[in-house]
Amino acid sequence: MDKKVSFEVIKRLPRYYRYLGELLKNDRTRISSKELSEKMNVTASQIRQDLNCFGGFGQQGYGYNVESLYNAIGGILGLNEGHKTIIIGAGHLGHALANYSSFQKRGFKLIGIFDNNPQKIGESVNEHKILSMDELDAFVKEHTPSIAILTVPKAVVHDIAQKLVSLGIKGLLNFCYTDVDIPSHVCIENVHLSDSLMTLSYKLKNMQ
Amino acid sequence: MDKKVSFEVIKRLPRYYRYLGELLKNDRTRISSKELSEKMNVTASQIRQDLNCFGGFGQQGYGYNVESLYNAIGGILGLNEGHKTIIIGAGHLGHALANYSSFQKRGFKLIGIFDNNPQKIGESVNEHKILSMDELDAFVKEHTPSIAILTVPKAVVHDIAQKLVSLGIKGLLNFCYTDVDIPSHVCIENVHLSDSLMTLSYKLKNMQ
Repeated sequence: MDKKVSFEVIKRLPRYYRYLGELLKNDRTRISSKELSEKMNVTASQIRQDLNCFGGFGQQGYGYNVESLYNAIGGILGLNEGHKTIIIGAGHLGHALANYSSFQKRGFKLIGIFDNNPQKIGESVNEHKILSMDELDAFVKEHTPSIAILTVPKAVVHDIAQKLVSLGIKGLLNFCYTDVDIPSHVCIENVHLSDSLMTLSYKLKNMQ
Repeated sequence: MDKKVSFEVIKRLPRYYRYLGELLKNDRTRISSKELSEKMNVTASQIRQDLNCFGGFGQQGYGYNVESLYNAIGGILGLNEGHKTIIIGAGHLGHALANYSSFQKRGFKLIGIFDNNPQKIGESVNEHKILSMDELDAFVKEHTPSIAILTVPKAVVHDIAQKLVSLGIKGLLNFCYTDVDIPSHVCIENVHLSDSLMTLSYKLKNMQ
């Protein structure tokens, strides 16, 4: 069933997951689709439709059980699979991401960080020594990470992505603003930090 | 008309804008909604619906004029308004964002970066000296930035947001994972870096 779920629905799942996680932390046991909808800024019917894509979880008149829905969405997102993750590029963004505690909380386990700058190699970031790119092959073969986060310059991102794919990496999170050609058995997610600034600009323009 | 446009449509506008910008760079003059839809991973009818929210731009049988559509979406997003932007927090993420060239390209002009760490104050980042938080009041009054990007620890984000609002900042881009209460005349956009990793995880799970 999951295969037919639209991209827009999938994009909303992390938001549901985060929000339900907050409710859980505050010991909430259930929530109505109406309240969930107000918090999430989508209609209640949209929420019901979204969750029905995966079989539906609510009960008429009761709403959703927060913990079951949280766990179910985590399962749908594959967050309980303990993805071993590496970061390529130990610049400021690489450092920031290595220290980003939400990644670990969501089941992404950082196991290595790489750079080709001799001045960075050997430095420690969040208990990981920055490794040389020369060590990448052996490391990936030994530790079999499934995800690589790319925070490298545009000029090298394509070659590095090809190398990672040839080493068996299955998923790339790319922070570099460029198209990367990868084979169809590999997944890529491109992050565009300026999108949120553009959305903010829209809001500012239409609020005045 | 803009006021009624749904959040989901607005969220897609930056993607249209980026993609059209790429086409422009490659000297493309027009594009069909079909081709645009394949690249953007939304249906052609969705694209037509989205753009109709703003009056529509295509011509039957011709498609869209790339440059006009690019400029029109830029206008809708308010990107030609030259937002003066400051960054609060000169840690790794603050540094990375200060060096992020897409921000400037999209019309967001970085005019200052602030931190409260004496060891950072006075350092240069992308031609800006890191200023002390003590200088924030006077700086904002003199230079009237409209947007502040927050890359500060969770414990202080609420107080800093309140201060910025009281100084007249109209838009906040918040990278800290926490809810910030702000008055209704101020806009906030929260960035959750782990959302894209969760989306990637979903793709990985459903591709195997």
